[in-house]
Amino acid sequence: MKIGIIGSGVVGQTLGAALKSKGHDIRLGVRSVSQADLDKPRDRAETLRQWQAKTHVDIVTFAQAAAFGEVVINATGGGVSLQALQIAGAEAIGEKILIDVSNPGDFSTGTLTSLPHLTNTTSVGEEIQKAFPKAKVVKTLNTAYIGVGVNATLVGDGEGDMFIAGNDAQAKASVEALLKRDFNWKNVVDLGDIVGARSMEQFLILWFRLFGLRGTPLFGVKLVG
Amino acid sequence: MKIGIIGSGVVGQTLGAALKSKGHDIRLGVRSVSQADLDKPRDRAETLRQWQAKTHVDIVTFAQAAAFGEVVINATGGGVSLQALQIAGAEAIGEKILIDVSNPGDFSTGTLTSLPHLTNTTSVGEEIQKAFPKAKVVKTLNTAYIGVGVNATLVGDGEGDMFIAGNDAQAKASVEALLKRDFNWKNVVDLGDIVGARSMEQFLILWFRLFGLRGTPLFGVKLVG
Repeated sequence: MKIGIIGSGVVGQTLGAALKSKGHDIRLGVRSVSQADLDKPRDRAETLRQWQAKTHVDIVTFAQAAAFGEVVINATGGGVSLQALQIAGAEAIGEKILIDVSNPGDFSTGTLTSLPHLTNTTSVGEEIQKAFPKAKVVKTLNTAYIGVGVNATLVGDGEGDMFIAGNDAQAKASVEALLKRDFNWKNVVDLGDIVGARSMEQFLILWFRLFGLRGTPLFGVKLVG
Repeated sequence: MKIGIIGSGVVGQTLGAALKSKGHDIRLGVRSVSQADLDKPRDRAETLRQWQAKTHVDIVTFAQAAAFGEVVINATGGGVSLQALQIAGAEAIGEKILIDVSNPGDFSTGTLTSLPHLTNTTSVGEEIQKAFPKAKVVKTLNTAYIGVGVNATLVGDGEGDMFIAGNDAQAKASVEALLKRDFNWKNVVDLGDIVGARSMEQFLILWFRLFGLRGTPLFGVKLVG
């Protein structure tokens, strides 16, 4: 499948490499494709040139990635997602499935909190759906470390639960199939319409607390009962 | 053990009856012990007179319950907890273990959200600890339906995780022992100091979404990995 990824940080790179390895045709969308930007050191992520040399994925603009994909993935930070997707363009996104894996995390105070305007009474997923009403927004993969997200068997042999939310049942079914087939998730829990994104994004604070205390992001969560 | 419970709704009643059945000496604290209030119909909970007839637990004022308990439990709603505990009184609470089981849930808009002044950058548990600096505040039991909270075996034979947070290690150890002995929790996950209450209270939105979709509160959550 042709997949355009918006965002080239750790999340976008991890998703791009994993999907490419499963045979998908990937374009990674970045804000700037200048030579200088390809070599710019990046927090935790590889430089784009290093990543490209390893994965052989084409690096293009946000707009080109959105236009290319049959499915588009938002892999930008929650606080900049709406802006990045506006740059990608409503026309290029159209009525496509738009997988949103973002979180409204805010580290600006030194402690992880959620951006108030993107939490509690709303969520990044809901705001994206409002801004792109034709797109079939599907929220998923934001409740786990992305390395686990693309390979559920890294944790407890894949017995954890992945959540999903969105307004379009067929789009959710397609994304669920991808999660199971390509990312080895055995259990996908449907949280209903896109308002479910709110509950998934609120999980960030608990996830991050556990990450800090365990010292590893290699854990998941499973519903019991 | 002598336990004073602040709050007489479903949560306080369920905790009181369960702890009494395990041999603890309980006083249930209410705002008003007038005859009229004992017979007042209550949302979801029994009238206090019905509950008293069944449990034989003494119903007293907030202040009397706090003074009576070697351990005090805050079972009021998160939005009124600080006020209720101020009525109970800092002197009566003193340096006791203060188990906080509340959530900052707000139904006033018709949809469950969290009270902004008690979430994200803080939590009910943290605000209680600030207001009662001598008390040993231990956050727990707020991430499950209280019926499951007092009997973990109702869900998946007790394989779910209960969380706990607080600044005092000895107080947490005492509460953990009570959770395991009296409420059948096999796994208690320590989320560190009282700031961990924040991550536990944020879980409310996901819990409530799952409750709505499943149509039953009989579920739990388990960490994997």
